Amino acid sequence: MEALVLEEARRISLRPFSLPQVVGPRDVRIRIHTVGICGSDIHYYQHGRIGPFVVNEPMVLGHEAAGTVVEVGDDVHHLKPGDRVCMEPGVPDMESRASREGMYNLDPKVRFWATPPIHGCLTPFVVHPAAFTFRLPDNVSFAEGAIVEPLSIGLQAATKAGIRPGDVAVVLGAGTIGMMCALAALAGGCSRAIVCDLVPEKLDLIGSVQGVTTVNIREQSPRDAVAQLTDGWGANVVFEASGNEKAFDGIVDLLCPGGRLVLVGMPQKAVPLDVVALQIKEAKIESVFRYANMFPRAIQLIASGRLDVKPFISRTFPFAEGIKAFEEAASGNPNDVKVQIVLE
Amino acid sequence: MEALVLEEARRISLRPFSLPQVVGPRDVRIRIHTVGICGSDIHYYQHGRIGPFVVNEPMVLGHEAAGTVVEVGDDVHHLKPGDRVCMEPGVPDMESRASREGMYNLDPKVRFWATPPIHGCLTPFVVHPAAFTFRLPDNVSFAEGAIVEPLSIGLQAATKAGIRPGDVAVVLGAGTIGMMCALAALAGGCSRAIVCDLVPEKLDLIGSVQGVTTVNIREQSPRDAVAQLTDGWGANVVFEASGNEKAFDGIVDLLCPGGRLVLVGMPQKAVPLDVVALQIKEAKIESVFRYANMFPRAIQLIASGRLDVKPFISRTFPFAEGIKAFEEAASGNPNDVKVQIVLE
Amino acid sequence: MEALVLEEARRISLRPFSLPQVVGPRDVRIRIHTVGICGSDIHYYQHGRIGPFVVNEPMVLGHEAAGTVVEVGDDVHHLKPGDRVCMEPGVPDMESRASREGMYNLDPKVRFWATPPIHGCLTPFVVHPAAFTFRLPDNVSFAEGAIVEPLSIGLQAATKAGIRPGDVAVVLGAGTIGMMCALAALAGGCSRAIVCDLVPEKLDLIGSVQGVTTVNIREQSPRDAVAQLTDGWGANVVFEASGNEKAFDGIVDLLCPGGRLVLVGMPQKAVPLDVVALQIKEAKIESVFRYANMFPRAIQLIASGRLDVKPFISRTFPFAEGIKAFEEAASGNPNDVKVQIVLE
Amino acid sequence: MEALVLEEARRISLRPFSLPQVVGPRDVRIRIHTVGICGSDIHYYQHGRIGPFVVNEPMVLGHEAAGTVVEVGDDVHHLKPGDRVCMEPGVPDMESRASREGMYNLDPKVRFWATPPIHGCLTPFVVHPAAFTFRLPDNVSFAEGAIVEPLSIGLQAATKAGIRPGDVAVVLGAGTIGMMCALAALAGGCSRAIVCDLVPEKLDLIGSVQGVTTVNIREQSPRDAVAQLTDGWGANVVFEASGNEKAFDGIVDLLCPGGRLVLVGMPQKAVPLDVVALQIKEAKIESVFRYANMFPRAIQLIASGRLDVKPFISRTFPFAEGIKAFEEAASGNPNDVKVQIVLE
Repeated sequence: MEALVLEEARRISLRPFSLPQVVGPRDVRIRIHTVGICGSDIHYYQHGRIGPFVVNEPMVLGHEAAGTVVEVGDDVHHLKPGDRVCMEPGVPDMESRASREGMYNLDPKVRFWATPPIHGCLTPFVVHPAAFTFRLPDNVSFAEGAIVEPLSIGLQAATKAGIRPGDVAVVLGAGTIGMMCALAALAGGCSRAIVCDLVPEKLDLIGSVQGVTTVNIREQSPRDAVAQLTDGWGANVVFEASGNEKAFDGIVDLLCPGGRLVLVGMPQKAVPLDVVALQIKEAKIESVFRYANMFPRAIQLIASGRLDVKPFISRTFPFAEGIKAFEEAASGNPNDVKVQIVLE
Repeated sequence: MEALVLEEARRISLRPFSLPQVVGPRDVRIRIHTVGICGSDIHYYQHGRIGPFVVNEPMVLGHEAAGTVVEVGDDVHHLKPGDRVCMEPGVPDMESRASREGMYNLDPKVRFWATPPIHGCLTPFVVHPAAFTFRLPDNVSFAEGAIVEPLSIGLQAATKAGIRPGDVAVVLGAGTIGMMCALAALAGGCSRAIVCDLVPEKLDLIGSVQGVTTVNIREQSPRDAVAQLTDGWGANVVFEASGNEKAFDGIVDLLCPGGRLVLVGMPQKAVPLDVVALQIKEAKIESVFRYANMFPRAIQLIASGRLDVKPFISRTFPFAEGIKAFEEAASGNPNDVKVQIVLE
Repeated sequence: MEALVLEEARRISLRPFSLPQVVGPRDVRIRIHTVGICGSDIHYYQHGRIGPFVVNEPMVLGHEAAGTVVEVGDDVHHLKPGDRVCMEPGVPDMESRASREGMYNLDPKVRFWATPPIHGCLTPFVVHPAAFTFRLPDNVSFAEGAIVEPLSIGLQAATKAGIRPGDVAVVLGAGTIGMMCALAALAGGCSRAIVCDLVPEKLDLIGSVQGVTTVNIREQSPRDAVAQLTDGWGANVVFEASGNEKAFDGIVDLLCPGGRLVLVGMPQKAVPLDVVALQIKEAKIESVFRYANMFPRAIQLIASGRLDVKPFISRTFPFAEGIKAFEEAASGNPNDVKVQIVLE
Repeated sequence: MEALVLEEARRISLRPFSLPQVVGPRDVRIRIHTVGICGSDIHYYQHGRIGPFVVNEPMVLGHEAAGTVVEVGDDVHHLKPGDRVCMEPGVPDMESRASREGMYNLDPKVRFWATPPIHGCLTPFVVHPAAFTFRLPDNVSFAEGAIVEPLSIGLQAATKAGIRPGDVAVVLGAGTIGMMCALAALAGGCSRAIVCDLVPEKLDLIGSVQGVTTVNIREQSPRDAVAQLTDGWGANVVFEASGNEKAFDGIVDLLCPGGRLVLVGMPQKAVPLDVVALQIKEAKIESVFRYANMFPRAIQLIASGRLDVKPFISRTFPFAEGIKAFEEAASGNPNDVKVQIVLE
């Protein structure tokens, strides 16, 4: 079976690769249709590692996937061959303490696609636990199904934010995850998302969504923009989605009394926190690690039309051009949000 | 000054009526522009009372109002003459225990427009505390401003529901409040609102909103509809907005495990509650009494375009035809959701 | 291996009984030391059924157990032979939707000891999943370990109650579960628990706990007692632990504005709910079904000395007198709270 | 009327001082009995300022007070002359937005005793709003009443922590506020409070409370202590009550997955926050500014015996020796927790 394999940093092959295809009683076998390229895929491609996760052996890439069920295990009842599905790429040990307590995303033993030493799904067929495989309604395309994964991060952030209807949100950073946060914040109950970045193309794209106000931080400070749009009260929620240390400078000033700061981006080093500024507002900080139980929510929001991801699927490449897809995705084109590879 | 006065049950006059016009240091004086007619106004008109609240003396009607500030007290800084505004009709004692604890709507001493013995606002000028008067952005009309009050009930319900992004909601009853609950549920983060009623005109109207699925309960049981739309899991939230005892029959069956039932409608007598059915799902029940701090949220949602109330403003009458407006609103026309009176 | 077997309603044998003893890789084998007799055990003994659960074949009784690990599976790392432990009697399918969402107690496929057709643990050795087996600190006895199960119900109720420090609680019903609710409410942050019942012996026992005020409902109404003790404000939380329909008469009157009613007892038929009374206080209702993730909390509270269960362990019988223990427990002695059987 | 007046930094007089004594309709007049000396009083005494609050004119000190009502305004119904009371020292504008939203402690216009330019209560009689004056039960002494204020900070922290019954807490810093946090955490539902400091006298005192484990950080790192006491899982809640920047080094390591860090201490400059460490645990951070609605809770917990503050009232001085009391309190005696001044 062909697979898109990261041989080592900066070298990808499209070549035969053998992956286990045994369908256990609670598993399904899926013919992969569409796989999105994630920033982490690109990071492994460029650097061969992310923090402690090092690509020491060739690894199949890809973890944002949709496809069609072709076989189901004996104990699987909610799926059947022919079902169109998308898959949660992380499979936790559901008996771990974190999982029992409802936080399966925090289980340290989670096996996550395309995170060394676990292979990804950029290959025609994969076997996956049925419990982490979700049926797509007829009106949700494979392309939309394959973007459920990054959207789920936005939804995890929106859920952690404890949004109350009509809240005003700020999103710092208009990368893919920042855009997903903005979409999730609005679909999740916010009246407005004030998205701050410095790349005009990205601001233009997200700015076309009803409820989004964009701020080019070269032209206006987020603080001034928020003060103006909230009559000086501040935003109920700030999503930090840039991962840039500089974004933390004055970040508490963006919040209203009782506001929440949600940490989505991952800065490379410790950031300074002004404790007293936080206290004067009794603000709180939430943090996000991937997602738990968000796939069904993402699918419902897309299916009902309350959240439209289609404008954010920028370009599509056939599997045969998978290497080119990675090169393009890695090139930093400001018009690209999500690049996808189609296998069928 | 002219006012629309309920003299006694079934008798309204448009006649001169003297109301206090002293503007205290924290008050504003408002020229009323638009006033919506509420079900409670109609109930007082038809029956002369609601429960313990009895119209023993002539009472000015109306509590859903928008207008323009014409004078402000010395200590008022966030409003100025010329500001277009809408007003929260209940003024609590902010030093009461309930108010201090953040539940000012539960203060038993609240003074609420058009609730005996407090007069309403169907008159050209009113004086009101600035703290309960809210500025309308330029893109929010007086008609929209005057519907903020009933929408706030829907938002209070949506807030109590603790919606998480992508939740599925059921709304039982497609009266005005049921419709406001459906709008608030969707704007507040739900992916879908399944609205159940038996009046086709009302279902057609609310069914035109993206995300709403309608169920005519003469044709399909809510239980079957919900099971079908949620793959048997159940709805995350059920808003009971009919006030009809019959709606409680099997209501817990509509909920998913951990689901929430929000009681908005006010049944005239006790309803049967199946405790064990509730327990098997560890479901919870929330209840709603008017609203607190919802006006700014409603205004934001309308202003940002995330929630469109315009289709629900059915008909408008000039002040001079105010009596006719009441008669029409009381006639039960299935095409009427909100009837409004315009004073300017 | 001997076991205490319910042959049919009203007939228990102590006789050899074969149960599976295969230790899977994630299981442990436990030598049972102490088993408490629960109201449900007694109900099966007296009636041969609880609702839809019917004892059609001989069933080993018992589900409140503590003992010593004698063997561990290959993948078990947090337990070792010799560890003193207590066991959660319900084993859910951790991959079910309810389990994934953090509510494993609501998984309909849970296998629960001594609930037909699943056998209980009144036998010298059992095999159990390590994930639902919890180590007892040295200062927690087997007797205390065996009462962790009913205490966990109280803790689940206290957790659902959303207690804030200093809340005032009311507990309706001073049966074993009511007492556990009172202990859990106090340990869980309440300043007071006002326990209402009509059996003087039970009120005397629970009344000896610091923070408990008892109300004999033959002498004073709960409403008057609560009004007096809270200066008319009402209780923050009411635990309904009697399961008696009469307890629901006027129950909302006991609550303060924003108060919570927690349904623990299981009335045999629907109870009347005064919706409007609930709404005027924006009260909420929570419901409890067994427990999830409460065993470690119960053990910690006992070990730290913050919660003392010893006064509630009334009598102990050796395994050889297990039938007599059941007869005594079923006799309704008002001085009995928890009767236990010791196997070693 | 005599008063204890801070003339300027390091100079206190006991001298006649005129304060308004007009009792408005919602006020009470109180004869002061006991006043505790707070760290902020000492800070003003030593430095003449706290951040932006500067003592430019002579200011009466003291804000932790209990006394007896001697006169009530016409609209006061819940208090009467002779009632023993304690007083919340901050009086917010209850119509501010923060107050309406239930966070009156965050109102920037709050008038707080002994915070320039507002005078404190170290004088025989004060006038105070009845809404912020709380009756003491017969079994709560004036000394206990006067410690309700600092205890309320601990309770605010415990409330923000969202404690669930049986949680394990860590408290960093065993100053007065750290001790109040430990007491509040335990009374508020924790099974254990692991208190970390380096002053043996303070650790000995707080260590005598049931449920407290002390860690002398000269001998053991908090990380090791917590890992050992929680089997490596981590603490559910960490209260940072030292205000020391060094305490933030590795602070996230103390938390369990999903744990909460509550910021009570006020570091003088920004502290480094390890965002990724926080995210891997999806930990959250809460912050505390004084308190809202905590006085009734503190009083209830003391009155019911669930929380014992008496061991923390170290020494008492008569009013005539008030200057000496301040000197002693400022001397940093490790055996002093709370020093109080008695006026009657």
